[in-house]
Order: sequence, then structure tokens, then C-alpha cells
Amino acid sequence: MGAVGELVVRECKASKFADCDVVFSGLNAEDAESIEMEFLKANLAVFSNAKNYRRDPLREHHKLQKGFLVCNSNCAVIGLVIPFAALQARFGPVDQVSVVTMQAVSGAGYPGVPSMDILDNVVPFISGEEDKLETEARKILGAINEAKTAFVEQDQLRVSAACNRVAVLDGHTACVSLKFKNRPAPSAEEVRKALSEYVSEAQRLGCPRPPSRASKSLAATSRTGHSRGWTVTSVAGTPSAWDGCARTRVASSILSSWH
Amino acid sequence: MGAVGELVVRECKASKFADCDVVFSGLNAEDAESIEMEFLKANLAVFSNAKNYRRDPLREHHKLQKGFLVCNSNCAVIGLVIPFAALQARFGPVDQVSVVTMQAVSGAGYPGVPSMDILDNVVPFISGEEDKLETEARKILGAINEAKTAFVEQDQLRVSAACNRVAVLDGHTACVSLKFKNRPAPSAEEVRKALSEYVSEAQRLGCPRPPSRASKSLAATSRTGHSRGWTVTSVAGTPSAWDGCARTRVASSILSSWH
Amino acid sequence: MGAVGELVVRECKASKFADCDVVFSGLNAEDAESIEMEFLKANLAVFSNAKNYRRDPLREHHKLQKGFLVCNSNCAVIGLVIPFAALQARFGPVDQVSVVTMQAVSGAGYPGVPSMDILDNVVPFISGEEDKLETEARKILGAINEAKTAFVEQDQLRVSAACNRVAVLDGHTACVSLKFKNRPAPSAEEVRKALSEYVSEAQRLGCPRPPSRASKSLAATSRTGHSRGWTVTSVAGTPSAWDGCARTRVASSILSSWH
Amino acid sequence: MGAVGELVVRECKASKFADCDVVFSGLNAEDAESIEMEFLKANLAVFSNAKNYRRDPLREHHKLQKGFLVCNSNCAVIGLVIPFAALQARFGPVDQVSVVTMQAVSGAGYPGVPSMDILDNVVPFISGEEDKLETEARKILGAINEAKTAFVEQDQLRVSAACNRVAVLDGHTACVSLKFKNRPAPSAEEVRKALSEYVSEAQRLGCPRPPSRASKSLAATSRTGHSRGWTVTSVAGTPSAWDGCARTRVASSILSSWH
Repeated sequence: MGAVGELVVRECKASKFADCDVVFSGLNAEDAESIEMEFLKANLAVFSNAKNYRRDPLREHHKLQKGFLVCNSNCAVIGLVIPFAALQARFGPVDQVSVVTMQAVSGAGYPGVPSMDILDNVVPFISGEEDKLETEARKILGAINEAKTAFVEQDQLRVSAACNRVAVLDGHTACVSLKFKNRPAPSAEEVRKALSEYVSEAQRLGCPRPPSRASKSLAATSRTGHSRGWTVTSVAGTPSAWDGCARTRVASSILSSWH
Repeated sequence: MGAVGELVVRECKASKFADCDVVFSGLNAEDAESIEMEFLKANLAVFSNAKNYRRDPLREHHKLQKGFLVCNSNCAVIGLVIPFAALQARFGPVDQVSVVTMQAVSGAGYPGVPSMDILDNVVPFISGEEDKLETEARKILGAINEAKTAFVEQDQLRVSAACNRVAVLDGHTACVSLKFKNRPAPSAEEVRKALSEYVSEAQRLGCPRPPSRASKSLAATSRTGHSRGWTVTSVAGTPSAWDGCARTRVASSILSSWH
Repeated sequence: MGAVGELVVRECKASKFADCDVVFSGLNAEDAESIEMEFLKANLAVFSNAKNYRRDPLREHHKLQKGFLVCNSNCAVIGLVIPFAALQARFGPVDQVSVVTMQAVSGAGYPGVPSMDILDNVVPFISGEEDKLETEARKILGAINEAKTAFVEQDQLRVSAACNRVAVLDGHTACVSLKFKNRPAPSAEEVRKALSEYVSEAQRLGCPRPPSRASKSLAATSRTGHSRGWTVTSVAGTPSAWDGCARTRVASSILSSWH
Repeated sequence: MGAVGELVVRECKASKFADCDVVFSGLNAEDAESIEMEFLKANLAVFSNAKNYRRDPLREHHKLQKGFLVCNSNCAVIGLVIPFAALQARFGPVDQVSVVTMQAVSGAGYPGVPSMDILDNVVPFISGEEDKLETEARKILGAINEAKTAFVEQDQLRVSAACNRVAVLDGHTACVSLKFKNRPAPSAEEVRKALSEYVSEAQRLGCPRPPSRASKSLAATSRTGHSRGWTVTSVAGTPSAWDGCARTRVASSILSSWH
């Protein structure tokens, strides 16, 4: 790609992008609603960062030949679902989850969080974020129905989230307590092993630039912020209060800010 | 009190402090073990910041007339037990607790946490801290036996803690999910009311300089770090995963650093 | 003063404030221009935080009996002029000044500086700030003409400022190199003494709540941010490059944000 | 290079490293003094990060055939000398320099700066650092005598430095005012151009991995911390106080910590 000065700017109408195989949309939610729908109906393949259509599979409704709309997820849930997928693949369904996040300011975009709010402070609530964690995890860990017309949520998965903003630039951290449906529950060591050995779909399918490892278990005292990769996971201690629970800390370093 | 230059420094032996009604000890744990015991046996009333004798009531063992040793608690547990006391007074025993802390660097003393560890980062583990939270809460929320010779722990209280260090100077924050033994569990609104109305023992007994309010419920988005008082508590949302749980966020601003 | 809920809100017209001896204006610059002029012409005594009339003495123009308008200064210059006044009172005029500031985010108001700009960073320029430092210092260190109709700037004072924003909540720090007109220049020790001994006008005139000391010399390694007083000054070393210069570091902790 | 576990650890004696073409020393100053001298006398080529022999060219004294000792510089001075070299190549000698640094915590090593000192603060003095800036700049910008036995300092260069520590992980920033010997002094625009066009020796000599550009001029408001390259320089405004001075801000991002 050339210099920024050489980039071609086209009017944001589907007819101007008919020659594109794939369209990436970084539109704000206010604009994405109508524009992405127009692109979709024009049979374009759209990948979107907006939250508008995240929970709806749209292809079937519109009798599309080629067009589709894939929405990436909330930036805090993305660090949870890979470890959850790893654990469920080995130990069966997760039943109950309590997650407390410590989220970086990049997740709020720019200008985003005022420095007067976050320097020497923790902001103990992020509006709208807790719901997204609870609902999107169920969708992403779910499946697609046989006709490929709708998502099938993992609706037995009950997630309770408390989201905090901390004075970190990039990379969200989450402390997670979870309960497996099956008994006996795995030990902390078994959980650590399952996380380390997990191979994600992005790796199996040979996607371009997959993570070299889907998940990495670190000693509990390691610095979280510096490994700018996919997910960094560490399991610490044996939780005492919730019988049969495994507790995991998930730190994900995501370079861009997604909502 | 006069200028620092006028303070009298005495050798740290009980015989040199025989004229004191009360002795405050800010000794390191390595020194506190023997020195505090010597003071105690000399029938002096000692208040200590060291962790050595926190879990043991010592008076009875030593046939003391007047001497005793009161140890303050770990700095992270102190912000939890006041709200817990308020909740238990209204709704009966708390059964299970999951607490995730975001602790200030002052809790580690000086020089304490290296800046290279905490700037732009969350340190996701504090060695020894999680155990203290789990055990000290049970002691503080417990009672003293009839003969006043031993603590009676609230041993049905199961606490699971995950402790994190964040880039905050003073004041720990905790996100707490808890489960009451009695059914039906109180609503979030009832919990908020109980916290607001609670009058602590320090207030009832007319102690010098008690908090004007033992607990204060803030809107969820308020800045935590600036109210340098006893405890600041906010209750947010209705948790979905743990049936009958109340979730509370507790932010305590404590000016000195206690362990 | 009672609770916020009991405050009386009046329409912002001079006629509604005729019963006030003094009016404090915290208006934004966009609104202050016309409203403060209206109050002034109505013969009210106004103290303003806005920058609009800072450089103009207005009383004479408007044939006022009682009304006047006093504007406080830019928040970075205020920490410089007290030490300068102290030095000039002892050693005669300062000639040349090079000042580099490290300013807190509170100076930019709220929401002000985005956290993505300042976490783990220095913002090496503050728009409009450098000019204010250079011009306002000359006005404040100047005088009022005999007729009391105009400011007389200390126009021999040449100030060159470079302003930076740092990740600090409250309290600006400045590193200052300055050159006296008279020769020989005072030693670092003489400068330190002059700063320590200076008694400001606010103290001499018996103003309400003056600083207990106008200026305080600290050892060079002291923490700057915690002394929430007027000015904290430390002089360090003997500068080598600029003959006859004294170098001083000025850290001012100002609780509100002024522009 | 293989995994850490496969690294061979040898006793730190010159005889154990006789097979090495080049030895890199990351020793602390306490150990470097004697060990590096032993390696040097054993005719080994040593590159050192320690400060011990920085100011002394050692080759001649020891009649070495092949051995030499190259010491890298203080981490704050390194960001200054490249722009200075660029300016002197175009405009002739720099005469007087006033530099105020805002240095990252990485420069103090690990554990280094306690977080209680630097969170929400500026530490307005770095012991020993100001001298290093003043003396090392003169050495690096100087030359080597004809016999190649000694450094020839640029002793007309008078540097006055004030060093501050700020809450930044990596990358020092400096605000510099400087005065050229020749008159008339260049304009800010000419300075900016000279910095942009400068090609450093590392580039001209074809060293491995030279910077793609020795110096880069940014708009004054750009974020400093993110360009992890060699030096980032921006020139802002026209200084008013020091006649014939050019003022430059220098931000260098250096990944390791050097003293």
C-alpha cells in the first residue's frame, strides 16, 4: 500500500465498491446501520467493526448470492471466548461464569476516557459493556443452525460481568471464576494444560496470520501488558468458595479498539 | 505534637515505655514477633500494624492484668468487612463470596511495587494477599468466645479472592459477588438501602473520630479515588449468573498502608 | 453553605445580582466576554476565571464608581511569578528566562486531555499556553501606572516557554533558567535563601487564608505532587551554560483548573 | 538463537571467552570496572553498557593488538547528540545549550523508580544524570585526536541540564534551547529542514540495521511515546528570550535501558 496521500477515497455507496471482493467497515454505529445494509443487499461481502448487526445473521433474510455481513465482537468478550472454547472442548460445558474486567482505555476509542477520570483511579463501571459480555459470549460460543440461517446460542451459559476501566493503554485483563456442568470438575493443573494445548480454528483452518498459540499460560506474576498477541492466560490457585470452579485470569492484548 | 526534631527516641524495650497507656507498633514483621511479645508480657497495651499476631488472641495465654495486643487487619480486607457486616445485620449470613480486588500501590509499602511493573499495566497477582483476604474476613466477621479467650470465626463464610495491583496510589477497589444463606435473597435496592443505613460499632460506641457514615452508596460511574474516607460502596445492576447473589463494588480509601 | 440542593440559581443578568458585594465568574471564555462586561458596567465587583479581559484594566474606560474586574492568571504562570517576585525583590530585575513546564491534566479542564494521549506519554506542546506564560508574567510582575488606568508591563523581562503535558492530575511543575540583569549574579545558596525568606503581599496585607509561606525550598528529590499549597520551589545545582544564571525548579499545586 | 534453556553460561573470565570476536558486557558498574579491564587486556573487543570507562579511550594505554572497549552513552544524551550533529553539520558550532529532560522510568533499570514516587507525579531531579548529559555530549560531539589515542571534546559546547523523571515506560523527551556561534542564527524552518535531511554516520557507513531516518520532524502535538525508533524531533515556535536561539524538542524512544 502506498502513502496515505495516494489513497483513493470513494463515495460511501455500494455501487462505488462493486469491484471489491471484500469490504471492511469501520463506520460508527450511527452510520453503519443503513450503509452496511445497503452494501449487504448489493451482494457485497462486508466485515464490520460496528455493533449494529452483531447479534443477527443476515444472509438468509435477503436471499443473497454472495453478500454477507460478519461483525467482530466486543473487545472485552474476545479475550474470554478463546479460553472458554479451549475449556469446553476438553471438559464439557461451562455453566456459570463470574467475570471482572480491568479494561484498557483504548476500548473506549478516541477521545474516549478523559484523563481526569482515569489517572490514579479505577472507573468501576462501563456503561453497556456488562450486557455485551453476557450476551455475546453466548453467541460466539454457540453454533449456527443446520440451515445456516440463525445463530444457536449456548443458552445454558450464565455470565455475570462487572467491568472496570483502568489506567492501561491497550489490552484488557479479566479475572474469571467459572463452574463446569460436569462433575468432578478439572483441577487447576488440568485447566492449565487444556489452555496450553488448545489449537484454535483460526490455526486449524490455515487462516492468514493466525496466532502462533491460541492461549498461553503464564506464571501468575508476569507482566500482562507487553505481549501484544492474541490472548495471554494464567491460572492461579485453587478457588475455595465455589465448589468445582476453576478460576482463570485472562489478559488479552488487542491492538485496535473494538466495541 | 512538636516538630520532628523534638521527638524523643527511646530504645525499643518495654521497660523504656512503662509510662505509656497505649503503645502503637509500626514495626516490620521480622522485628514485631519478639518485640511486641516482650511489650505484651510487660502488661502494656499494644496496637500493632504487623501481621504476626493477627490471628491469635493472646491475652489469656499470658495471664495479663492490663496488657493486650490488638492487630489491625490486612488493608484489602478492611474495605470488605464493613459492608459485609452491614449486609449480615440486615439479611443474615453471607455464604459464598467471590472478590476481585484492584489494589493501590501504597498497600505494598515503599519502595514496594517497581514503576516498570505497574505503569500501563495490571499486575494480576499479589503474593500472600489472597489467603489473607479469605482468612481474615472470617475472623473479623466472627466473634469472641464467652470466656473471651479465643476468636470464633464465621466459618460458614467461604471467600474466594483474586487480587490485582493497579496504577493507583491510595485506595483499594473490590468487585464482590456474594450469596446469602437465606432465601429469597434481597434485591439490589434492598442491599443498597442496608449499606446506606448501617451504623458501625465505631459510631455507636462513640469512638474518637469515627466515620461520619460507615458506608456510602454512589452512582456506579463516580470517581472512586477521591473520597479519602472509610469506605465507599456502590451496588450496580442485577447479577444474572449466580442465583440469589448481590453484587457490590467496594472502594476503600485508606491513607496509610497496612498489610 | 448548605447542601447543593438548596443553592439558589439566578438568571445570569447583572440586575439579578445587584445585592452582591462581589461576584465570582467561572464562565467559559465564549460567554464571559459579554456577560462580564454587562456586570462590570452595572458597577459590580467581579472576579473572573476567564481569559478574556486578563490583559486589560477596565475600570477607567467605564467611569465606574465601585465596579471592577479582576482576572486571575493562567494556571502555569501563577507558579512562576511568586518566586520571580521573591528573586527580584532581593537581586533586582530578571532579564532572560527559559521555562519548561510539565503541566497537570487538570489545567485543561474536563473532559480535557484524552487518556489515550497522556497515559505512558508526554504531550510536548500545549496550544496557546506558551504565549500566555510569556505575556502574563510580564504583566503580573509589572505595575500599575500612577493614574491607575493601565498596567505597566515589566517589558525588559524576556520569557521563552516550552509547555508539556504530563500524566499528573493536579499541580504543574516548571524548570526555569533565568538571568539577572545585575552583576555579579547571586549564588544558588543566595537564591535559595531569598525564596525561603520571601513574604508575599497576600501575607503582608492580611488577606484571608494566605499561604503560611509564599515559597518553600525543598531538597531536589522530594515528591512534588503532594504538597497542595501555593508554591513549592527547589533550587538545584549550579548551572554551567548560562553565565550568571540561577536555575530553579518550581512546582505549584493548584487545586482548581485555571486558564 | 535457541531457547533460554539452551544458552551456555560460562565463568566470567577472559580466558573462557577467547573464541569470541566480540564481547557484549551488560555488567553493573560495580563489577564492570575490573572484569572489563581484564577482558580488554586479554585483547578482546568489548562493547559495554557500563559507565566506568565511558570517558577514557583505553586502547593506547595497554598496547593492544586487537582488543578495545567501546562504551555506549548515557540514555538521555543519546537522543540529543544526533540532532546536534545534524545542526552543527549545517550551521556550525552550537555554543550554549539549556536542556530539560522528561525521562522514562526504564532509564533507572529494574526495580528502579518506586511506583509510589512516580504515579501522579514528576520527580524533579535524577542524581548524577545532569552531569552525564553535560559531559558526555561534549565527548560524543567531539572527535578523536590524530594519533587516535584520546578524545578531543567539543569544549566550547556549554550544556546546562535539568533532568526529571516522568510516568512513562520507555522513551525520553527533552526540551532544548540552544544558541549557535555563527550569526545570523538559522530560522526555525531552516532548523527543521536540517534535521529532516540529516544522514547519520550509521546510515552512511552501511552499518547493520541503521535507522531509516536519523531524525524526523513531527508536528508539535504528535504523540511522542509510540514511535519506537531512533529519535523523533520536533521544532516548535520561535523562541523569544534568547536571541539567535533555536528551540527543539527531542523525543527519543530507546527500547533498552542504558546509563
